[in-house]
Amino acid sequence: MHPFEFPLDLPARGSRQRLHALHAQLRAAILDGRLKSGLRLPATRELALALGLSRNTVVAAYERLFSEGYLEARRGAGNFVATLGAPRVPPPDSGSADRRLAAPWRGLAVPMQAAMVPGACDFRLGIPDQRAFPFDVWRRLSMRAWRTAARLPPMYDAPQGRPALREAIARHVAFARAVACGPDDVIVTQGAQQAFDLLARVLVTPGRTVVAVEDPGYPPVREAFAAAGASVVGVPVDDEGLVVERLPAQARVVYVTPSHQFPLGVAMSPPRRAALLDFARAHGATVIEDDYDSEFRYGQRPLEALQTLDRAGSVCYVGTFSKCLFPSLRLGYAVAPAWLQPALAHARRLADGFGDPVAQETLAAFIAEGHLARHVRRMRRLYAQRRERLLEALHRHSDGRMDVWPSGAGLHLAARLPRDIDAGGVAARAAQQGIQLEALDGYALDRPGPNGLAFGYGRVEEGGIEEAVRRIARLLG
Amino acid sequence: MHPFEFPLDLPARGSRQRLHALHAQLRAAILDGRLKSGLRLPATRELALALGLSRNTVVAAYERLFSEGYLEARRGAGNFVATLGAPRVPPPDSGSADRRLAAPWRGLAVPMQAAMVPGACDFRLGIPDQRAFPFDVWRRLSMRAWRTAARLPPMYDAPQGRPALREAIARHVAFARAVACGPDDVIVTQGAQQAFDLLARVLVTPGRTVVAVEDPGYPPVREAFAAAGASVVGVPVDDEGLVVERLPAQARVVYVTPSHQFPLGVAMSPPRRAALLDFARAHGATVIEDDYDSEFRYGQRPLEALQTLDRAGSVCYVGTFSKCLFPSLRLGYAVAPAWLQPALAHARRLADGFGDPVAQETLAAFIAEGHLARHVRRMRRLYAQRRERLLEALHRHSDGRMDVWPSGAGLHLAARLPRDIDAGGVAARAAQQGIQLEALDGYALDRPGPNGLAFGYGRVEEGGIEEAVRRIARLLG
Repeated sequence: MHPFEFPLDLPARGSRQRLHALHAQLRAAILDGRLKSGLRLPATRELALALGLSRNTVVAAYERLFSEGYLEARRGAGNFVATLGAPRVPPPDSGSADRRLAAPWRGLAVPMQAAMVPGACDFRLGIPDQRAFPFDVWRRLSMRAWRTAARLPPMYDAPQGRPALREAIARHVAFARAVACGPDDVIVTQGAQQAFDLLARVLVTPGRTVVAVEDPGYPPVREAFAAAGASVVGVPVDDEGLVVERLPAQARVVYVTPSHQFPLGVAMSPPRRAALLDFARAHGATVIEDDYDSEFRYGQRPLEALQTLDRAGSVCYVGTFSKCLFPSLRLGYAVAPAWLQPALAHARRLADGFGDPVAQETLAAFIAEGHLARHVRRMRRLYAQRRERLLEALHRHSDGRMDVWPSGAGLHLAARLPRDIDAGGVAARAAQQGIQLEALDGYALDRPGPNGLAFGYGRVEEGGIEEAVRRIARLLG
Repeated sequence: MHPFEFPLDLPARGSRQRLHALHAQLRAAILDGRLKSGLRLPATRELALALGLSRNTVVAAYERLFSEGYLEARRGAGNFVATLGAPRVPPPDSGSADRRLAAPWRGLAVPMQAAMVPGACDFRLGIPDQRAFPFDVWRRLSMRAWRTAARLPPMYDAPQGRPALREAIARHVAFARAVACGPDDVIVTQGAQQAFDLLARVLVTPGRTVVAVEDPGYPPVREAFAAAGASVVGVPVDDEGLVVERLPAQARVVYVTPSHQFPLGVAMSPPRRAALLDFARAHGATVIEDDYDSEFRYGQRPLEALQTLDRAGSVCYVGTFSKCLFPSLRLGYAVAPAWLQPALAHARRLADGFGDPVAQETLAAFIAEGHLARHVRRMRRLYAQRRERLLEALHRHSDGRMDVWPSGAGLHLAARLPRDIDAGGVAARAAQQGIQLEALDGYALDRPGPNGLAFGYGRVEEGGIEEAVRRIARLLG
């Protein structure tokens, strides 16, 4: 393409006429909105070249547009179409426009990002510390993967993911988590969220399927199931994890975080694990086991994964590299029973075709060469120290008013507050002091959530923990 | 994580007892399937280190397992769990297992990749030639993006994509295609397929929404809409593109490829474009304009995009970098009217969270520094030569039996065959001679497709075209 193929009809010759035509047609395009306000115009040299004009002609046309207020310059950034009065398309009254959307998608606002508070003491959940990540190693492996890719014929890849990564993930989960699987059981996804979304597509019959989730629990998963047309039911959680006897008999999908409940942090007890697998067998239900951060374990050996205990092909295990490496990697995976595998592969083919092969080959090499194991080992020591410091501080300062749920893994823990203290208010006042932390009620679904606070220690500076907790304790009044 | 945390209980001391315990517990794990056949065991050194055993103990345990047939060695590849008789989980009879899947997802097989026939003359559709791609530039920009990413705090990014890429895409389509948009109108997707899938999610009410597609047309899009619960209706295509007067009045979504119809290659005529926009306005329908390969144009200036002509916010424009760069990049985008933007952003947030920021920053720099424009210019010259050669050869050898549809853009063209010649049979016999080409009937939906062949010239060697066409012509008998 030319850098500029905006339709323009310019006289063959005569710089005066050509200047006039160029100016008039650009102005018309700006007025009727084909060139929108805020758009940067090509550099005069670039445009002159593309249109076979002298640069002076283009400069003159731009200057006219400036003088008329159609363009504005931003220092060092170039020439931009100015903001004029009314936009071309009168925004269709959102009512009528919205009616073109399927009901669940109407009346939404563009999602906002949680702002990073500079210099804040950051207790938010699910954010790892990537400062210790060996980016140099990653870049080297990435370069190698790009060199290989450059030699391959262009291709539309398999939706399940690159064989090398599926093999590496199978070994990783088989040996790190005793999850029983081979490469064919693994489907690579765009973060764990895509695994949940693909499962929602293939397991949910809109308006019919009942999906049980932990309450309190992880909102993006229940939102994905609701968007797929499921009726999502919250099931309470106690110190042993999901209260299995409270599962509705109609539930055909059960989403759980047995290693480290999100957000309370408790582990599901062995009896509950057995009961959940019995429920799944008895009702032909599928259990989705979200093992999002259990690489980080402190103290005793972990309980076996549900997938390991399952003998009926009822469990789909989902893992992610967002916590043990970092979120912007966008790589997760599902270890699925045989009957689920073709459906998940087809669902991914329709969802986005297939994943980025270079990123997948890079991660495969990173795992195969032992960098993943090394990095997790290093980070676990770091997180263990922060966790210790946090537990000490909570014990020392809370005066018994912050009662920590038992938790032996992951990147966060949670503490219960007395009924009469408003956790949301505490979090809000803490934010004013530059302390980012979350109240548990934000994770509740069908019932008032436990009254408490969640403390992520993935990002927080160890040195700042004690003082932050002291301040939070003071906010309890 | 240790490289090996498979649950093992080993006596504190006594190498003989520890050897016995290690061997017995590994064997048990293999027998009950927790260690699956085909899985590679850790190297003896690695395992000894992880378990605090002498390496000799591990070697001895492995040797016993070998002698008993539980392990097998593959030259240079390590020690693998051997294939034993019955798998642990009797594969649930697929009927009952399948009933756990939503109806559209039952009875599928794992999708297969189209095999590359080595040394074949490759006329398949939609595959660009990436041998001329400046991978060195890409690697450099990618390295720069990684260095920047390493300095940023870990984050969960915005679902709409990186601001720099949305800005670069807005300029690209505004100037290259006269599409009226600013950065806020752009949502970056994981290839164009994700854009279609997100649109299907937010525009389709399962069991209610009628979606009209071109027939013949692009299967993955209609499959995505069908999977979302739409009733998909095929509308015929002629030399002027979609036959708009044949659109069912109930259609609320219309998918078209106006620049270069897939697979026939024709451009939608101006009257048809106007008629389609009238239809959309009159029925409150949304038009999805798939502009997948129109960067490559030969001859006259392109017709304006539907999005450019639209004055009612009815058109969502979808583009991709799979054709002008290469497919494994997995980057596409939608330019959406304001009323669609929040829904698409939320749909992506639930689908997979957000895209890979490093890949997006790399592409943003690649576009901003003019490499995209340069590459497309270079490739257009190359493709134009192949196209010329192909048209000449078809004219010279077809004897009037291969009637090419008019086509001024893209990476492929199509030719009609006489009724009495079986296009599928010709393609099959051509494959036996190492010529990969596709019969058009594979793209038909509700009606017998036009009888003909499609010729992609993205991958084919210019030198091989004439001979290949001569052979194909001979196959017409």
